[in-house]
Amino acid sequence: MNRVITFGEIMLRLTTPGFQRFQQSSALEVTFGGAEANVAVAIAQLGGEAAFVTRLPSHEIAERTLGVLRGLGVDVAQVVRGGERMGVYYLEQGASQRAGKVIYDRTGSAMATAQPGDFDWKTIFGGARWFHWSGITPALSSSARQITEEACCAARAAGLTVSFDLNYRAKLWTLGEAARALEPLMQYVDLCVTSAEEASAVFGIESANGPGREERAAKELQKRFDFRQIALTERRANIANETQWAASLFTGGEIVRSSDYDISIVDRVGAGDSFTGALIFALLRGDESLKAVEFAVAASCLKHTIPGDFNLVTIAEVEALVAGGGGGRVQR
Amino acid sequence: MNRVITFGEIMLRLTTPGFQRFQQSSALEVTFGGAEANVAVAIAQLGGEAAFVTRLPSHEIAERTLGVLRGLGVDVAQVVRGGERMGVYYLEQGASQRAGKVIYDRTGSAMATAQPGDFDWKTIFGGARWFHWSGITPALSSSARQITEEACCAARAAGLTVSFDLNYRAKLWTLGEAARALEPLMQYVDLCVTSAEEASAVFGIESANGPGREERAAKELQKRFDFRQIALTERRANIANETQWAASLFTGGEIVRSSDYDISIVDRVGAGDSFTGALIFALLRGDESLKAVEFAVAASCLKHTIPGDFNLVTIAEVEALVAGGGGGRVQR
Amino acid sequence: MNRVITFGEIMLRLTTPGFQRFQQSSALEVTFGGAEANVAVAIAQLGGEAAFVTRLPSHEIAERTLGVLRGLGVDVAQVVRGGERMGVYYLEQGASQRAGKVIYDRTGSAMATAQPGDFDWKTIFGGARWFHWSGITPALSSSARQITEEACCAARAAGLTVSFDLNYRAKLWTLGEAARALEPLMQYVDLCVTSAEEASAVFGIESANGPGREERAAKELQKRFDFRQIALTERRANIANETQWAASLFTGGEIVRSSDYDISIVDRVGAGDSFTGALIFALLRGDESLKAVEFAVAASCLKHTIPGDFNLVTIAEVEALVAGGGGGRVQR
Amino acid sequence: MNRVITFGEIMLRLTTPGFQRFQQSSALEVTFGGAEANVAVAIAQLGGEAAFVTRLPSHEIAERTLGVLRGLGVDVAQVVRGGERMGVYYLEQGASQRAGKVIYDRTGSAMATAQPGDFDWKTIFGGARWFHWSGITPALSSSARQITEEACCAARAAGLTVSFDLNYRAKLWTLGEAARALEPLMQYVDLCVTSAEEASAVFGIESANGPGREERAAKELQKRFDFRQIALTERRANIANETQWAASLFTGGEIVRSSDYDISIVDRVGAGDSFTGALIFALLRGDESLKAVEFAVAASCLKHTIPGDFNLVTIAEVEALVAGGGGGRVQR
Amino acid sequence: MNRVITFGEIMLRLTTPGFQRFQQSSALEVTFGGAEANVAVAIAQLGGEAAFVTRLPSHEIAERTLGVLRGLGVDVAQVVRGGERMGVYYLEQGASQRAGKVIYDRTGSAMATAQPGDFDWKTIFGGARWFHWSGITPALSSSARQITEEACCAARAAGLTVSFDLNYRAKLWTLGEAARALEPLMQYVDLCVTSAEEASAVFGIESANGPGREERAAKELQKRFDFRQIALTERRANIANETQWAASLFTGGEIVRSSDYDISIVDRVGAGDSFTGALIFALLRGDESLKAVEFAVAASCLKHTIPGDFNLVTIAEVEALVAGGGGGRVQR
Amino acid sequence: MNRVITFGEIMLRLTTPGFQRFQQSSALEVTFGGAEANVAVAIAQLGGEAAFVTRLPSHEIAERTLGVLRGLGVDVAQVVRGGERMGVYYLEQGASQRAGKVIYDRTGSAMATAQPGDFDWKTIFGGARWFHWSGITPALSSSARQITEEACCAARAAGLTVSFDLNYRAKLWTLGEAARALEPLMQYVDLCVTSAEEASAVFGIESANGPGREERAAKELQKRFDFRQIALTERRANIANETQWAASLFTGGEIVRSSDYDISIVDRVGAGDSFTGALIFALLRGDESLKAVEFAVAASCLKHTIPGDFNLVTIAEVEALVAGGGGGRVQR
Repeated sequence: MNRVITFGEIMLRLTTPGFQRFQQSSALEVTFGGAEANVAVAIAQLGGEAAFVTRLPSHEIAERTLGVLRGLGVDVAQVVRGGERMGVYYLEQGASQRAGKVIYDRTGSAMATAQPGDFDWKTIFGGARWFHWSGITPALSSSARQITEEACCAARAAGLTVSFDLNYRAKLWTLGEAARALEPLMQYVDLCVTSAEEASAVFGIESANGPGREERAAKELQKRFDFRQIALTERRANIANETQWAASLFTGGEIVRSSDYDISIVDRVGAGDSFTGALIFALLRGDESLKAVEFAVAASCLKHTIPGDFNLVTIAEVEALVAGGGGGRVQR
Repeated sequence: MNRVITFGEIMLRLTTPGFQRFQQSSALEVTFGGAEANVAVAIAQLGGEAAFVTRLPSHEIAERTLGVLRGLGVDVAQVVRGGERMGVYYLEQGASQRAGKVIYDRTGSAMATAQPGDFDWKTIFGGARWFHWSGITPALSSSARQITEEACCAARAAGLTVSFDLNYRAKLWTLGEAARALEPLMQYVDLCVTSAEEASAVFGIESANGPGREERAAKELQKRFDFRQIALTERRANIANETQWAASLFTGGEIVRSSDYDISIVDRVGAGDSFTGALIFALLRGDESLKAVEFAVAASCLKHTIPGDFNLVTIAEVEALVAGGGGGRVQR
Repeated sequence: MNRVITFGEIMLRLTTPGFQRFQQSSALEVTFGGAEANVAVAIAQLGGEAAFVTRLPSHEIAERTLGVLRGLGVDVAQVVRGGERMGVYYLEQGASQRAGKVIYDRTGSAMATAQPGDFDWKTIFGGARWFHWSGITPALSSSARQITEEACCAARAAGLTVSFDLNYRAKLWTLGEAARALEPLMQYVDLCVTSAEEASAVFGIESANGPGREERAAKELQKRFDFRQIALTERRANIANETQWAASLFTGGEIVRSSDYDISIVDRVGAGDSFTGALIFALLRGDESLKAVEFAVAASCLKHTIPGDFNLVTIAEVEALVAGGGGGRVQR
Repeated sequence: MNRVITFGEIMLRLTTPGFQRFQQSSALEVTFGGAEANVAVAIAQLGGEAAFVTRLPSHEIAERTLGVLRGLGVDVAQVVRGGERMGVYYLEQGASQRAGKVIYDRTGSAMATAQPGDFDWKTIFGGARWFHWSGITPALSSSARQITEEACCAARAAGLTVSFDLNYRAKLWTLGEAARALEPLMQYVDLCVTSAEEASAVFGIESANGPGREERAAKELQKRFDFRQIALTERRANIANETQWAASLFTGGEIVRSSDYDISIVDRVGAGDSFTGALIFALLRGDESLKAVEFAVAASCLKHTIPGDFNLVTIAEVEALVAGGGGGRVQR
Repeated sequence: MNRVITFGEIMLRLTTPGFQRFQQSSALEVTFGGAEANVAVAIAQLGGEAAFVTRLPSHEIAERTLGVLRGLGVDVAQVVRGGERMGVYYLEQGASQRAGKVIYDRTGSAMATAQPGDFDWKTIFGGARWFHWSGITPALSSSARQITEEACCAARAAGLTVSFDLNYRAKLWTLGEAARALEPLMQYVDLCVTSAEEASAVFGIESANGPGREERAAKELQKRFDFRQIALTERRANIANETQWAASLFTGGEIVRSSDYDISIVDRVGAGDSFTGALIFALLRGDESLKAVEFAVAASCLKHTIPGDFNLVTIAEVEALVAGGGGGRVQR
Repeated sequence: MNRVITFGEIMLRLTTPGFQRFQQSSALEVTFGGAEANVAVAIAQLGGEAAFVTRLPSHEIAERTLGVLRGLGVDVAQVVRGGERMGVYYLEQGASQRAGKVIYDRTGSAMATAQPGDFDWKTIFGGARWFHWSGITPALSSSARQITEEACCAARAAGLTVSFDLNYRAKLWTLGEAARALEPLMQYVDLCVTSAEEASAVFGIESANGPGREERAAKELQKRFDFRQIALTERRANIANETQWAASLFTGGEIVRSSDYDISIVDRVGAGDSFTGALIFALLRGDESLKAVEFAVAASCLKHTIPGDFNLVTIAEVEALVAGGGGGRVQR
């Protein structure tokens, strides 16, 4: 039984096509995404068992959202219905020196207006082994913050492993607000996913730039919050459609680091989530640290080449890349 | 000086293409619309002078909204900026027995959260001759209701003619709420646009079905609210892509009725607004009643054939249709 | 427990957009469909419980097919994997006097090459109450014919109600071949869905044109095959984008007939299947005959307005149409 | 040997999609068309032998134009290259009371600036049996007018049958200019294609409205110009997407009239040309008058359902419609 | 008062999508552009005041062109209406070793056939501070050449600063023709924008390749034409979708050079114009030389990432890039 | 007389747009391709004379395939009609580390089920000078293998030069099967096109990696099969959208090698075929070895930038690239 529960907001994503700016597009591409839903999809596509929990209104587009998740193999039976609107985000893909841009339209969403008690955590966590949440959920509203704590407590009580992705969003709250809200919740977290840079910005974790930065940051994080494992991603990006990508995994004082990937990007949104999903999947099947982080980075490397938030790759594709099969030839 | 001011909410309209249902569309078509903005565009496209007043947030899509209106010849210099989000509506076009469907996502919009005092009515109405609003604006929020009254008072004080389109929207409020909110505002209205059916539902205006219904309804309406003029549209529609369309204009006890049009519909949203815009335009240029209502019905007949909320027709095209030139041959 | 099992072939459907001919389209629209899958989707969308059984190869497009069905609420857990290719059909939508056209590309498909014994009918029918198949399945190949008989026997043994839609396809076999293959299978059928015209062509059921034709045909059919119920659809169509549509249901000597619908067509493929799906749904929930056939005809009326094979309507929408709410106004 | 030569201008056609107005479309659909090229394509698609003669510049879009014609089976070996630009026409499809609209951009085109002597008529007409031109060619420029006469003389000298479609275009010249230019050329014409209405407008042929109008007009035309055959089309159209369509053929004092078709229109541009092409095809294969005109009207009925100028139908499809097979059912 | 007037031709731009060749595209993307209009848009989008002057015919597409400019904040009140056609250019985007390709279709355009006296320069230049033109305008026709001189004289008389972009187009005229036409006009120019390479080709300005080339070219140019300022762009491009980009500004004997940008290109057309527009904007607000050229190069760097001729960027975006904020992360 | 005959299968190619995965695309782009047809198109587009021979069924999509080839200048008069279906291949374009993917759907195609005797080789080879085939044709079925041998014999008998492209496809057969089938056919081959890597995999040609590998491979190949000429392509590709590309040509013991190209890829499918087509074209017009291979590599470099299988370039474009004109500037 390796069932993973993820909890957060899934939004309608409306993307301008073909590098158009918001001013230009006569049509917006429809997909769906949200950090925690992305993690659930990543796990389900790899063949794992994942359920996503959120609150959604009752209209046709929310209904479709559930159908999409179900079609991708994610269990949505525990989604709560209610509220007036569904979160939306508008995405303009960047190119070269022009960064991508998100307009969030999440105010007053069903998830932001959910109340403590809306979710039956006992039922939700029944038969599950892992709970994943991210720093976006408590950023939505104060009631979402309370519910997050409620969920963490219940997960702990039910004996689940808890993972957390910091996911700081400057358009949702300030660094100070994030720190104040998240620090008390860190006691529930077994696996923390972040980057040295983000950990420094939010939690003030000192880690001078240069070689060994991730190891230093991981040690500080562990000292501060006593996490069982820490995954730190590294992204180096000068322009919007290229990036370098790698990650480290810190476990019990030891750090291992994945290979580096130079990536020509199709869609970077959700890449971090695909890393987290693949990492959870790999850890749950028992991979040792290096194998797990290599698998997770390869999976998220492939995500960068796929339009939309979701990582639509199979386990075979990820393993072929780990094994060196990422060449560019057409498979025929 | 025939400057017309219209006031209300303009939304991002996201339409499923090609008769797709909300469940199906991989892209949504981007246009903009809202009852009062539609009236302003209709007037400007016919060559009149129109300004639209609303409140919009500061992001790129709101900016684009203003650019679109400006490009179509509408003055947007008095639009107030602020608030967190812009109203959105999702539209699924109907076909045959399947009615079109709107999902409103207007909660918490910049217009709904505007406050009395946000608009400088004295400046806005300076140099204007006509003020138009619709029943949608007070339906948005109680503050929007107060602002509407504020605007009506100011318009009256500035000596403007005031027109009002009832535009009852069941997804925004109940019939009772509408009646309670609108009745006190009717004292400010010179020209009331509605239908016999709608006036009966909201204001309880009795007008038995059958020949002469519009005249009876108009008389009742005038008795009750003492309007200077009343325009009543008549739509008979059994299926989503066909309609019959006509209107009457009641002035000082006399009623005139336009020709009837059998219309094969491309997009019916905004058709009523195009009628109102063309009617205001015609009255302002001094058309007598029958000519004005014929012009307005012909203009709105053409609107049914144009995708989007806006009536992109020229005065020459409308007059050609009035003159009988609506034949189907290609002009070449 | 009202679980329905449907069995047959689901194909990749590739449609030319915008009335283009096969010669013209630079892109083909991707959907999926097949008579029996369409029935399963119709039931699931109305809120019923439906599982679809077929055989599909292992590639990505077959995988997607399952995801689509799962997303729409159809249980695909019993789909067998194997074979080299997936059936495809190319569809050119007709208009006016130009009829729509199908190019079938089903030769050698996974379903056509399936062998007796490939399906574990005992497990499949466990917990189910109804089995539906159509005349297309035995038309695919002689082994498909054998499997169909195997399924019918097993369904009967498991005490399921069996429904059958004649669905004669001239591009798959001749009238004579159809008669020879289908007649021996009629003993397993409780509910037969066809039309007077089709029953005459395939089974030689005499029923002179004119009033009462359906009743005469139903009586003959019952005399010949002793069906428990017979549903006869009536389509009158002079041009490709308009039709008249109604149906009768014959039970124990009594026939009831639905209302007539004049339909402006968006996509007629799958309309018959949506009728059958809704009829099964209605009968299973206990509707008496007239109510059931009215519901089924209204559901399939709406299908004509939806692109693709599947009937994406809710029970509320169907019931609104039955209740007379099919007007063309936008719901807002 | 039934080779047909047609001569005129082929243009790049840029069409707004989905009933959009010129103001709205973010993309224009690319096809090609022109009255005489349309006739050549119609003949070639039916299985006849047709060559198209024009003058085109040397750029890539002109090259593509030739490739398109060649792909459709039209011989373009005698197209002359030269000039600076290619004619373009922008097309906005009409709907309901809004007529379709053409913006011609043909000024200074390669065909309009062609000079007498540019075409080697002896070679062109070698091995041919029929020459077709239309009233559009002499409307392009005075040199085009001279070339048209040159071609007519050469065709007559080579013993070809000459057909002519009046095709009056108000955006190219006035009625008076057309009459003055065309009348001297009528001596070369064997088969004249026009309508009673058009013949009256251009040539002042009197034919009072009402039953028998076509016969009266044909008699007048024959008296005036001594044509061997006269084909008169009849279009009755109140709205842009519906029409009634029929035609008569007058030969040696006898007139025959085709069946009537009520057509739901996809694209009406080129419908007249498809009639002419099919009529020439039918006459060349030896059809007697009624059969020929029935065939030609059925062919052009189908054209109304096909996007673009060209009639992409097979002889089998036309004959099925003549035989009554125009029902709306999908062929499968 | 920093009003800028730009003068030239704006064309309908029809672009093949997705790297398709002219032979392939079934639709062409509609935008508008022209060197001088692009400069006006660049200024208006940055928040400056710009008016564009041209001559356009009266049809719907020309009307739309004006609406687009107006929507983007450009004053088009002084556009003259007349002429038969509007210039068009077809654009095929290049990729890798395949260069982009333009087919100009400007012959006989409203701008090319404009006559001296058509423009009321006194009114146009009233209240303005800057006049910009480019070498394309006099290349259109000899009358356009005369009008350009007329405008330059009037601008000088009105005390405006005059800027000029050489913009040599080999498809419009030869190097010799350009030199002969442009040299007499250089006396009116205060700011000249070109590149060392282009100045050498057209004016024979010697400047051996290698370090310091731009400085040498600027000195020669100044010696020859006595410009107040000279801006020289530097583009190094081996393949169609990548470039290196920088510029220098020479003022009173001093030259300053911007940072270098390595750009992954979405659309390079109009990049030079966006540089010129931003440079004028920066100089008008009083930036000193280095700041101005850095701003202009950053603005045009961003233009390379935006589809269409126009630079749709805000001042904040440009300044963020100058400040080093061009990283590729999504802003959320 | 330089007529080239190519023989093989042409398929409907259905491509997911915009880097979408098979799971995502709501539409598939329609083109056509197949190794040997691609060679014929490459030759015809360069101005050579090419005919393509295959077997295709009789439906509308097969008809269109022929029209497309004819439009591009390929003679299809000898195509045999018959069989039930046309081969299809689904293509998902790769990006970065995600390789492109092909799903072949060729089982039972008209070409795979063709029988010896179906093609009249004497007529086909009449007037021709060159015959080209590839290793894909005998991989289709054992009868296709026999027909290939039949064709080779006939070509040899008719005195044609025979070229062969190894084109090993792992999804069609194993390396062992390929070797066994192809080796007996090598006696008919004059020019063999392959790569050192492929020759090693299929024929076990030893050629240790490192400098001179191609020369060693060519010598071994010649020793083994006594080819007159051997062309070896070299592709180095780490990611799906970038490649390095060059080729060598070995003639009578001498090897020449082309320039290297670093290519940013739009569509790599068919690039090898475009090399072969251009090489045949160059050899036929009498180019000496180095000139021929430079021309062929430049032509195929350009192919990488063009969507679809076909190389739509002119001889002028290829020669401009050979001459160093591959810069990225827009030609205007």
